[in-house]
Amino acid sequence: MRVIITAGPTREAIDPVRYLGNRSSGKMGAALAEACITAGHSTTLILGPVSTSFPSVENRVDVESARDMHSAVMREFPNHDLLIMAAAVADYRPKSVSPTKLSRSAGALTLELEPTEDIAASASSIRKPHQRIIGFSLERDGDLARARQKLLTKKLDLIVFNPLKTMNSEGVEAILLYPDGRTENVPYSSKAHFADILLNRAAALFT
Amino acid sequence: MRVIITAGPTREAIDPVRYLGNRSSGKMGAALAEACITAGHSTTLILGPVSTSFPSVENRVDVESARDMHSAVMREFPNHDLLIMAAAVADYRPKSVSPTKLSRSAGALTLELEPTEDIAASASSIRKPHQRIIGFSLERDGDLARARQKLLTKKLDLIVFNPLKTMNSEGVEAILLYPDGRTENVPYSSKAHFADILLNRAAALFT
Repeated sequence: MRVIITAGPTREAIDPVRYLGNRSSGKMGAALAEACITAGHSTTLILGPVSTSFPSVENRVDVESARDMHSAVMREFPNHDLLIMAAAVADYRPKSVSPTKLSRSAGALTLELEPTEDIAASASSIRKPHQRIIGFSLERDGDLARARQKLLTKKLDLIVFNPLKTMNSEGVEAILLYPDGRTENVPYSSKAHFADILLNRAAALFT
Repeated sequence: MRVIITAGPTREAIDPVRYLGNRSSGKMGAALAEACITAGHSTTLILGPVSTSFPSVENRVDVESARDMHSAVMREFPNHDLLIMAAAVADYRPKSVSPTKLSRSAGALTLELEPTEDIAASASSIRKPHQRIIGFSLERDGDLARARQKLLTKKLDLIVFNPLKTMNSEGVEAILLYPDGRTENVPYSSKAHFADILLNRAAALFT
């Protein structure tokens, strides 16, 4: 298989120094990349700014913002079979970026934010019949309904529901949701073990 | 000397996942810590979230937000002779932190920000006659006036003016400003070499 994995956070610039970020470590993505290499898949990584070390792959694209990641996914997806979106993409960015460092002396400050590109929905819109898309949904414990809604509205083949406590942790607790209503509970396991399970389920999406 | 070095960025939570951050790598702080150890100074590090590796010191305090860093500095400073504030502390934080992950479906979003604690000014306010304080001022190229204003209003003994391009780079270009109007241009040099120069100038503040 030719696989794309997106991983890490994105950063949305406020000014030359400040940004909106999120706490993704990229560890899930690194585990998925390892599992892909071991399984012999041709692998493309599209990575936000991470300090986690990633294995060497055929094709690594480093990006910073949600807009950059959106462009990279739209460019790379047509040449791949499977897209796994493990990145924690910012949902919002500042409406305007200040070209100069904002000064503290300005007192209180209001930051106007706008939604970023919906990468999952965009990828779905250009998907060919042989291609499969897996998303991740990090939500409050128990908020499965929201993960299911994302799965359906973004037309994904599988979504991984993670409770918030998974973030930055060594292990992962997950529920896999399918469009036909099937669910699979994956008990707490290492990210490496979970990556193997997910790639196995991904392969089954093509049969 | 008993020296405190603050380094790295701070993160100001928006919700459990998102934060306001800045691009500081902490490399200047790491170079200063190395120089302090080599010079035989007793060293306390107060560090925001960094991925740069730091040398082992007697006392390392890991913090996340500007509020945390303010508390740590106010607690530690009385037991030290010299405070070097190399951290890139957020100037603003959200007025309120959402206890739950903000949902994208909320559409456009306005984030109300408030100024964070002024750590330099707070440290000055509790300073004893034998103590010295060095600040950093990262500004647009040439905006020395703003660095000088910080030096005077925050009652520092020395401020290091860095142009914005120094951020995340391997080297540093700096102008040292003193309250009596003296300035010293330090030509572009490695952060390690600059750290030696700065500690030398710091020692002279006590004579």
